[in-house]
Amino acid sequence: MTSTPRRRGADRTEAIMRTTVELGQEIGYAKLSIEAIANRAGVGKHTIYRRWSSKGALLLDSLLSLDDPDLDFSYTDDVLADLREQAYAAVELLARPPVGPLVQALIAEAQHDPRVAAEFKERFITPMAGKLVKRLKAAQEEGHLSPDFDLDLAMAICSGPLYFQFLITQEPITREYVNDVFGALFAGMSPRPAATR
Amino acid sequence: MTSTPRRRGADRTEAIMRTTVELGQEIGYAKLSIEAIANRAGVGKHTIYRRWSSKGALLLDSLLSLDDPDLDFSYTDDVLADLREQAYAAVELLARPPVGPLVQALIAEAQHDPRVAAEFKERFITPMAGKLVKRLKAAQEEGHLSPDFDLDLAMAICSGPLYFQFLITQEPITREYVNDVFGALFAGMSPRPAATR
Repeated sequence: MTSTPRRRGADRTEAIMRTTVELGQEIGYAKLSIEAIANRAGVGKHTIYRRWSSKGALLLDSLLSLDDPDLDFSYTDDVLADLREQAYAAVELLARPPVGPLVQALIAEAQHDPRVAAEFKERFITPMAGKLVKRLKAAQEEGHLSPDFDLDLAMAICSGPLYFQFLITQEPITREYVNDVFGALFAGMSPRPAATR
Repeated sequence: MTSTPRRRGADRTEAIMRTTVELGQEIGYAKLSIEAIANRAGVGKHTIYRRWSSKGALLLDSLLSLDDPDLDFSYTDDVLADLREQAYAAVELLARPPVGPLVQALIAEAQHDPRVAAEFKERFITPMAGKLVKRLKAAQEEGHLSPDFDLDLAMAICSGPLYFQFLITQEPITREYVNDVFGALFAGMSPRPAATR
């Protein structure tokens, strides 16, 4: 195939994103500058800024350009097991460089740059929340999930405790932790009706 | 009182932390450099680095030097109401500058600097978790909380959904949101025993 300008543009875009991930792994995403990426990729800074308005925007595209992770939910008769399995997969993905440090760097950028936060939410969180809500809705229809559980809260409640561990305590998210969290979320904090009423 | 060297040292420490907060509010905590703080506070950079190993360490001390917020829990007969009240207070504190942006900046630093994460956890998260666990333990003893609820998970489960909203979706954390989250955590995601068994 001949190399058309469009094709060269796509190659260059891909090369910049690949450089972002590689250089970030080498020196840490905090130290990564647009200038350093441009130098390593052999392009001008303006070439990068023409496509990405900020480092955060470039980090997000670079993250999403990585091999598409399969974070779909199973639909068995055991919704709790299906949620746990999907969480294991998400946690393993986060534990595998460069994904974890990239997500951390993105969330760090999002604390200073509301546009990065909005784009991260739109392109990463919202699609994940959509899959989760769909899975939970099916469980509600089958009577495997409380009909009162507010699906609008699903992402915050199911993933909040995992993000808390990932971003704040920064302790390893083990399978046991995932199991314990979902066990507690399913059981609820309220004393059992039988014990108190 | 005569100004002893120790007193002058304490004054200078306080002035540096005050400058950190003020300058951060003016220009944003992301743009804040040790050099800019030193210039504004009228001290040398080395004076700052002698006391704080990093920007994150200085941000954390500056946050903790602010007026001590009363985030203690009430101990009424209604543990759910007590949790909600304490969460309202925490959320209001986060909504009031400079606290919210300072906490965001600290968590951003913690994504790149494990020492900042460890210190933030030790000096901010762990004490809060201690208060929460104490409150929940009392509720368990009084039969107002499931005896099966694992108190080791309490902080992640109760505050995870709030941090998720604060850091990731960055939507306002309303009282209604707090109420809905705790309502869902208490009820649990499992279908009611009466409905299924």
